[in-house]
Amino acid sequence: MKPIHWKIEATDGKARAGTIVTRRSVIETPVFMPVGTQGAVKGIRFEWLEDELDARIILGNTYHLFLRPGVDIINRFGGLHKFTSWNRAMLTDSGGFQVFSLTDLRKLNEDGVEFRSHLDGSKKILSPEVSMEIQAALGSEIVMVFDECPPGDAGYDATKTSLELTARWAARSKARFNDVQSASFSLSPASEEQAEACTLNGKQALFGIIQGAGHLDLRRESLDRTVEIGFDGYAIGGLSVGEEKVVMYEVLDQIAHQMPNDAPRYLMGVGTPEDLVEAVNAGVDIFDCVIPTRNGRTGSAFTSRGKVNIRNAKFSTDTGPLDPNCECSVCKRYSLGYLRHLNNAGEMTAATLISHHNVAFFLSTMRKAREAILESRFPAFRKDFLSGLHENNAEGV
Amino acid sequence: MKPIHWKIEATDGKARAGTIVTRRSVIETPVFMPVGTQGAVKGIRFEWLEDELDARIILGNTYHLFLRPGVDIINRFGGLHKFTSWNRAMLTDSGGFQVFSLTDLRKLNEDGVEFRSHLDGSKKILSPEVSMEIQAALGSEIVMVFDECPPGDAGYDATKTSLELTARWAARSKARFNDVQSASFSLSPASEEQAEACTLNGKQALFGIIQGAGHLDLRRESLDRTVEIGFDGYAIGGLSVGEEKVVMYEVLDQIAHQMPNDAPRYLMGVGTPEDLVEAVNAGVDIFDCVIPTRNGRTGSAFTSRGKVNIRNAKFSTDTGPLDPNCECSVCKRYSLGYLRHLNNAGEMTAATLISHHNVAFFLSTMRKAREAILESRFPAFRKDFLSGLHENNAEGV
Repeated sequence: MKPIHWKIEATDGKARAGTIVTRRSVIETPVFMPVGTQGAVKGIRFEWLEDELDARIILGNTYHLFLRPGVDIINRFGGLHKFTSWNRAMLTDSGGFQVFSLTDLRKLNEDGVEFRSHLDGSKKILSPEVSMEIQAALGSEIVMVFDECPPGDAGYDATKTSLELTARWAARSKARFNDVQSASFSLSPASEEQAEACTLNGKQALFGIIQGAGHLDLRRESLDRTVEIGFDGYAIGGLSVGEEKVVMYEVLDQIAHQMPNDAPRYLMGVGTPEDLVEAVNAGVDIFDCVIPTRNGRTGSAFTSRGKVNIRNAKFSTDTGPLDPNCECSVCKRYSLGYLRHLNNAGEMTAATLISHHNVAFFLSTMRKAREAILESRFPAFRKDFLSGLHENNAEGV
Repeated sequence: MKPIHWKIEATDGKARAGTIVTRRSVIETPVFMPVGTQGAVKGIRFEWLEDELDARIILGNTYHLFLRPGVDIINRFGGLHKFTSWNRAMLTDSGGFQVFSLTDLRKLNEDGVEFRSHLDGSKKILSPEVSMEIQAALGSEIVMVFDECPPGDAGYDATKTSLELTARWAARSKARFNDVQSASFSLSPASEEQAEACTLNGKQALFGIIQGAGHLDLRRESLDRTVEIGFDGYAIGGLSVGEEKVVMYEVLDQIAHQMPNDAPRYLMGVGTPEDLVEAVNAGVDIFDCVIPTRNGRTGSAFTSRGKVNIRNAKFSTDTGPLDPNCECSVCKRYSLGYLRHLNNAGEMTAATLISHHNVAFFLSTMRKAREAILESRFPAFRKDFLSGLHENNAEGV
């Protein structure tokens, strides 16, 4: 028995439509995971994510949850699902990326990273072992190995040194993960709605991460070393971290389809709707990104016609929706003029509604991509989608 | 034909259970109106207010909407209902209270008030006539006369001078209101769900406001002068504006039941759950207050056991709800520990969820008061409710 089931339903070129069965939900891919950094998707109540938006999986950030509320408290509740009441699948990252992007005064060595909390300056340590233990306590369906993420413009030697450390950490992550899973490990009980889920082993899945920045041979080396260790799924890390977009697309184009076919492929922390569709085209299945909610809080909407800045004065008397092609509850009910007013007036409901639309747009874009793959018309979908983003909106994408 | 229908279903002592039929919704009293100052109830999507919370009427603030987005824009949308998409009843205040509480550099004279916008410092004028015109453009079901609101500790002579001005302004408000209603006035169309509503005249209702601070004889004089002018409903203004609570209760006790029996009675801007139940006991039907949402944003919850400060460390591992006696979707799903975490982590969802519960608590308290009146057991309800607030919670109410 396995922790998750992965099945490819159809392919169209390199693009894949698949299904991931987890203990808590069936995830149809390509899929976008809304980001619930601190145990909540910013501005969007779980009820909306479940009922209307039908998000099958969300992401939780180990770094943030480790610092606040901390593992002790989450343990008292019986894991992150019970703590938050989100009862569908969750993926937790390893905490590594946030340690490198949010904290100062890091001490990196072979063992792991010592750093100071961005909240209170207290000294903390993360390592492959600690990360596996925290993620076991969180009880996510999908656990990520602890990796080092070098800057997008890192030089060749620095990148090579980093990915070798990442490879050693990956092996240590897996070893500790296996110990934790077998040593009287029990996840908090899920409501098993899917009969198929009963054939799962009830444990967490562990995904490896491929690094190598923009250096294709290092990416291939990282891929080989990660596959050699062997994981339940594989992720591409270290993209969209400052490198040129053409570099990201080149890595995706060259690497994604070489990742194991018999496991889900996850592009971490990326990106715009355009990025997602291009990555699906390259063979990626899973995405997460904060931009739908982060941009939602600043009044920036993603639409089928490109980005819409709700602060634009031309919208003040506009009775139309954010996106006339969107079926979400925000677009069906609220006008651009009203949303602009709420944003200008500083009403948090503006952030709530625009974030809601943005997440709806990301989720529905992945659903439409999936349908197109299943119906062998993904190239046409991709072309129409991308030209829609560019052609109809003077503000660009 | 009238703009609204008012019917008393039952009385219990001075307490009344009634029904207000408006063009857009049937309002069962006693009723609490969530405050939608700028065209949104802070933190709570209309969908929740309609479906779960079943708020029948909300309040809009003329002062805020006059300044932003302004009457021109709201006119372009065909009124506040169409602008916001809230299609149930709305009451708009006159703008007077905000002019006196939010702005500096006011010039008050017989005509009205000149003031500077708190948003951009621009010079604006509000008067009885202007307020009636703005409220007609907003298209609310219930319009309030333009009054002057003296401080709660105003001396006798200042209060008397003020209420005389308020009385003259009330007469001017009514005159201009009638002109505006008859001069080619058309409200934006409502979806007439209630057959009874079809017998209404389709115009706005106008409520008069009784002032007089804590001076009972001035309150009586203001009541007489307001009733003499004649309105569709009557409000008590100028309470909970800094005076001692015992003063407010004395005014309510002495004045509320002397207000016309054949019209709804509205206590403006008050108050805590305790205040509401005491005012119902004195014969008041309608309330509004910002505290459910304002306190919600700071992590302060109103519950059947008194106030709960979600920041209290003792809640960090508490798996129970905010209020075990509450049936709202927040209390049925989310734990104190989780809500505390969200609030500590600065997640806007904390404000959303606690505001939601607070509004649910205010609405359900009024529903329970109504049931108690209908079943002739209001004194027992009042006693139990108030002792619940005080006895079970060391933090007090």
